[in-house]
Amino acid sequence: MSGTWGKNIKYTIFGESHGEGIGIVIDNLPPGLELHISKIKLELQRRQPGSNDFVTSRKEADEFEILSGIFNHRTTGAPLCCFIKNTGHQSSDYDRTKDLIRPSHADYTAYIKYKGFNDYRGGGHFSGRLTAAIVFAGAVAKQILSEHNISIISHIYKIGNLCDSSLCNKDLSIEDFSHLTSMSFPTIDVSIGAVMQQRISDVKALGDSIGGIVETAILNLPAGLGSPFFDSLESTIAHLMFSIPGMKGIEFGSGFDLAEMKGSEANDHFYMEDSKICTLTNHNGGILGGISTGMPLVFKTVFKPTPSIALEQNTVNIKQLQNTKLNLIGRHDPCIVPRALPVVEAAAAMSILDCVPLSYL
Amino acid sequence: MSGTWGKNIKYTIFGESHGEGIGIVIDNLPPGLELHISKIKLELQRRQPGSNDFVTSRKEADEFEILSGIFNHRTTGAPLCCFIKNTGHQSSDYDRTKDLIRPSHADYTAYIKYKGFNDYRGGGHFSGRLTAAIVFAGAVAKQILSEHNISIISHIYKIGNLCDSSLCNKDLSIEDFSHLTSMSFPTIDVSIGAVMQQRISDVKALGDSIGGIVETAILNLPAGLGSPFFDSLESTIAHLMFSIPGMKGIEFGSGFDLAEMKGSEANDHFYMEDSKICTLTNHNGGILGGISTGMPLVFKTVFKPTPSIALEQNTVNIKQLQNTKLNLIGRHDPCIVPRALPVVEAAAAMSILDCVPLSYL
Amino acid sequence: MSGTWGKNIKYTIFGESHGEGIGIVIDNLPPGLELHISKIKLELQRRQPGSNDFVTSRKEADEFEILSGIFNHRTTGAPLCCFIKNTGHQSSDYDRTKDLIRPSHADYTAYIKYKGFNDYRGGGHFSGRLTAAIVFAGAVAKQILSEHNISIISHIYKIGNLCDSSLCNKDLSIEDFSHLTSMSFPTIDVSIGAVMQQRISDVKALGDSIGGIVETAILNLPAGLGSPFFDSLESTIAHLMFSIPGMKGIEFGSGFDLAEMKGSEANDHFYMEDSKICTLTNHNGGILGGISTGMPLVFKTVFKPTPSIALEQNTVNIKQLQNTKLNLIGRHDPCIVPRALPVVEAAAAMSILDCVPLSYL
Amino acid sequence: MSGTWGKNIKYTIFGESHGEGIGIVIDNLPPGLELHISKIKLELQRRQPGSNDFVTSRKEADEFEILSGIFNHRTTGAPLCCFIKNTGHQSSDYDRTKDLIRPSHADYTAYIKYKGFNDYRGGGHFSGRLTAAIVFAGAVAKQILSEHNISIISHIYKIGNLCDSSLCNKDLSIEDFSHLTSMSFPTIDVSIGAVMQQRISDVKALGDSIGGIVETAILNLPAGLGSPFFDSLESTIAHLMFSIPGMKGIEFGSGFDLAEMKGSEANDHFYMEDSKICTLTNHNGGILGGISTGMPLVFKTVFKPTPSIALEQNTVNIKQLQNTKLNLIGRHDPCIVPRALPVVEAAAAMSILDCVPLSYL
Repeated sequence: MSGTWGKNIKYTIFGESHGEGIGIVIDNLPPGLELHISKIKLELQRRQPGSNDFVTSRKEADEFEILSGIFNHRTTGAPLCCFIKNTGHQSSDYDRTKDLIRPSHADYTAYIKYKGFNDYRGGGHFSGRLTAAIVFAGAVAKQILSEHNISIISHIYKIGNLCDSSLCNKDLSIEDFSHLTSMSFPTIDVSIGAVMQQRISDVKALGDSIGGIVETAILNLPAGLGSPFFDSLESTIAHLMFSIPGMKGIEFGSGFDLAEMKGSEANDHFYMEDSKICTLTNHNGGILGGISTGMPLVFKTVFKPTPSIALEQNTVNIKQLQNTKLNLIGRHDPCIVPRALPVVEAAAAMSILDCVPLSYL
Repeated sequence: MSGTWGKNIKYTIFGESHGEGIGIVIDNLPPGLELHISKIKLELQRRQPGSNDFVTSRKEADEFEILSGIFNHRTTGAPLCCFIKNTGHQSSDYDRTKDLIRPSHADYTAYIKYKGFNDYRGGGHFSGRLTAAIVFAGAVAKQILSEHNISIISHIYKIGNLCDSSLCNKDLSIEDFSHLTSMSFPTIDVSIGAVMQQRISDVKALGDSIGGIVETAILNLPAGLGSPFFDSLESTIAHLMFSIPGMKGIEFGSGFDLAEMKGSEANDHFYMEDSKICTLTNHNGGILGGISTGMPLVFKTVFKPTPSIALEQNTVNIKQLQNTKLNLIGRHDPCIVPRALPVVEAAAAMSILDCVPLSYL
Repeated sequence: MSGTWGKNIKYTIFGESHGEGIGIVIDNLPPGLELHISKIKLELQRRQPGSNDFVTSRKEADEFEILSGIFNHRTTGAPLCCFIKNTGHQSSDYDRTKDLIRPSHADYTAYIKYKGFNDYRGGGHFSGRLTAAIVFAGAVAKQILSEHNISIISHIYKIGNLCDSSLCNKDLSIEDFSHLTSMSFPTIDVSIGAVMQQRISDVKALGDSIGGIVETAILNLPAGLGSPFFDSLESTIAHLMFSIPGMKGIEFGSGFDLAEMKGSEANDHFYMEDSKICTLTNHNGGILGGISTGMPLVFKTVFKPTPSIALEQNTVNIKQLQNTKLNLIGRHDPCIVPRALPVVEAAAAMSILDCVPLSYL
Repeated sequence: MSGTWGKNIKYTIFGESHGEGIGIVIDNLPPGLELHISKIKLELQRRQPGSNDFVTSRKEADEFEILSGIFNHRTTGAPLCCFIKNTGHQSSDYDRTKDLIRPSHADYTAYIKYKGFNDYRGGGHFSGRLTAAIVFAGAVAKQILSEHNISIISHIYKIGNLCDSSLCNKDLSIEDFSHLTSMSFPTIDVSIGAVMQQRISDVKALGDSIGGIVETAILNLPAGLGSPFFDSLESTIAHLMFSIPGMKGIEFGSGFDLAEMKGSEANDHFYMEDSKICTLTNHNGGILGGISTGMPLVFKTVFKPTPSIALEQNTVNIKQLQNTKLNLIGRHDPCIVPRALPVVEAAAAMSILDCVPLSYL
């Protein structure tokens, strides 16, 4: 079972890269919501390829239709179905290599799980293209959260060994980051951003790809959201984040660096700031016992290098069960990270909405 | 909602550190299973404190009773309830400091979420003590998996800046690791293990604590388990792992190192080994597209330093809303990692069982 | 939360009577299934209006598109989305009476729940039209069940005070009922069927409507499906049946007649028939302890008279909060029962599939 | 999967008739609730056998312990586990007949589903004894509902062919029914109640049993609770009601009588009463489109005659697969209906609580 997620609001995803299209059904939205169509389009554009040099030049229109759940421009409370038609795909590209399971793609595992009946064209249901549906749903979730002043920002924290500043940096204030969303290549340190872009171009020129890390912060979250044990805030967020193709790790607050820290360094001391309880540091990333502390919820997600590269690779012909060589043709992102940002933010918004009592909203 | 988890088999946890006890209800177990009581006890002992120098010397008996679901020493298929009575706790210890929210503990967030009605003694329902119930459930899950030759091993990968070898090391074969489970301080490199233990002792002597990383491998998993999107294998495992108190990050395969890799380095090439499809490397940790590849499923989890330290800390009195100092008395683990291993393995076993069609079992 | 149902296979319904259309996403279908399109169309035709005198003469094309989950004419295992476009509706009909909440319709309750933002045209999301999506999903479920020889039949058991024979009648054998599905007005006793049709015509001539009862049997179900307590076979079936608009009661086996029976009459005695354990009678309708016995699973569902009648009715203007009169114009079914049969069978098929271990399939 | 139910509050049932005991875990209760222990005991007493002539004389103490989730006499918000120890059962009674599957009991279906590993003593997990756990949970749910003025009443509507008045009777006002809960044999018409009791005694004298119908009303429910389609109010209530052993049918409002009614008779006309929208009649039992109307929610449930009778019955020896005779010894309820009332009310309370936004509470 894989296509439906959520407790407060249920999201059901469907579609394939080279079929009729992709879509998502969103159930239990509050009624009376007037969707900010232009903001939804903006989010989808952030995910779209073709906008600059370091992502694939393949065109995807991502024009969405809303098939249900809207009346007089407002949500009705009934399930909202969004559908994005596929256009302009060249399926024939895939026939030539359809039996050659692409390394680090889902071709092999999909073949085994679905007994060879999976739609292999462009990865089919496993395609990163389906993240457009997640971005749509996330844009709706963001709108609901924004009415409660909760906002989500993210930036490219790392590309290869090039590292941006962190949102945890105490010398920076949250106000300094509001511009990230409108940047085409969002980094805190603009100069490091330029070097990162050059690095991606270099890698592309070699027919290769490169990985990276996204850092995300959820701001103005009230304290008290989440649960102990099986529905901890980390559990809920991580569950949805690992639905994003290519995501291989998540850490909250100081994350893996906590291994090298002592309790006397890692413990976030409480103190009163005006009449609010705050922590001096935020090594726990705004979550204690699976529940929000009211501090910024900060986490990092790592994306592997795009599996599709122009270089020749070894693989297996799944029908013949023989070793063979694979040479992929086509335009591919040399680095998925810039396009992953709006997807990570969308998943973050959906996760938070699932932990907020709907009464609060 | 937090206390129930699972689709195939449902686990419902309950209890508090200083109440009557803790327990877990396991629903939908296959009937006719003769529980390996001695193995369950062994797993619980691995988690128990007091066994050596670098964990807390507090005694917990962890004697479990099975209240239902067993008849003539075998599972009946009806819900199995395991209960572990609490003994020998000194609740009065906690009255003195009950309004002083301990840094990096759940005291503050539990207070907010539950409006001050939470059982604060020893962390109450948030206590690491509840992981004994998870270890029990995991031992049952392990037994079911072992009948299909699936096994789970783990070791202490990192304490402070001291790092063991990795289970991903190609020069080591899986056969070399079977002894890890029976080690009191499981590391691949025994000499680094000794240094780690010394480091923990040193930290303890300072009244401080230290973090660390656990590395885990699930062996002999068939290819094809898991799902794309919302119930990816990573999603399922991460969801349950983040239920473990103190866990702040998870990465699969090469995880965060993938940020620094190129596609040409990170892609796991397929090849035929005898008549089986394998990958030459395992940077994806045995998962592609959210589905198992048949290679070892490898992941790392980071645990923060034990929040309870003997050193004086700044905090807030939650009733008076004033800054104050906190001096904790009592015996605490200087490092939670050695005791976390059986808990991580238990959660791994439960996760896998949730992804395996029960028919397979 | 209302739009998603199911554990083995998840169904997510969406759409409105007078919006873009209606649809359903079916997740976790077995891969490789070649859908019997002609049989699906047949089922949809059985539900369609306009086919004879005793149902509404309004035309609904019910042409479905499959937007995902199919490749090379077979299911892929990925979510299958079916969409049925709306055509030819006259929304203006509804503007005149939109504030007059129709008695026994969902106008009032939808208005309250959705704060007036619901799509009121033709009942919107509450319309019986959405049962076309259920019939589609049920046709797929039926196909899967039929591969295991499980079949579902139903007939019009009662219209007004006119009563057909029962499928529980011991003098009739199951073989006698295979023709029911292809009848336009399925009754066991054809002559009583003719009288029923006349009764419906008479009621229609008066501008009134009438209720009735559907009796359904699921044949060749293996013993052992279902669960005690919260997921009893009766619970699962009843849950889904009560999703059908207009359904107000369900009874299994002898149902409400059991109130008048003694244990010595109602107990179904076991006996050996060849090497199979059977019961001599079937007052329990093929279910004991929430689990199938292997005997035919028999149940009855009652449908209220169509709420839309031509006669003047008293109601309230929801905006003005004043008493008023309502005169409905338009073509309406004088009796919903004949069109309910394929919907009940569809829900039965979906319910059973949810109780069958997918491994069995 | 069977042992866990609920969305807002999750209930997990466990235990067997002749094992250690029975229990229930209730997750997500609001914190700070001071349980009315005496009222809980009263509800359990209503279900207890041995209180009069027409129920079994077997003694069950039903002393409950609360193992978790309570601190300083109030709910903490963490899972509450209630356990009721078994006492005084004579398991040896069951050894003699353990291979003789009792007609209309779950012996056969449990044997098949659980491959013979089920605890057969007294029905094991399938025993009516587990309804004590449901009554406990329902008493907690009732307390929460009562804080919002929502109350639940029920009476014995039918025993054999003896019929009480209905709660739908327009000539009776709701105020007339508050005494039902404290009656030992609750009927609206006391004289018919006396005849019913005589009928049960007569049946008991013959070694036989008899069925009956419970009618229930939920009062002061606000309009707008429930959902269209898969989580209709009827779906939710029916789902849980069919978890009660021996329950074989449910109808809302006029239920099966609607088959004989015309729309002009069955439609509940709206009118303004003071400033509230009411319906003149309540044939829909307070539910339209799966959502509450604000009128009393009225439904009837039918219970089959107690399967355990003293008369000789035909059955099969499940081990030998041969026809045989069964003579049950022991004390059994000649009619389960009087003891079913508190169970039906408990399930009603739990169902309603599942449909109420927790924010409302």
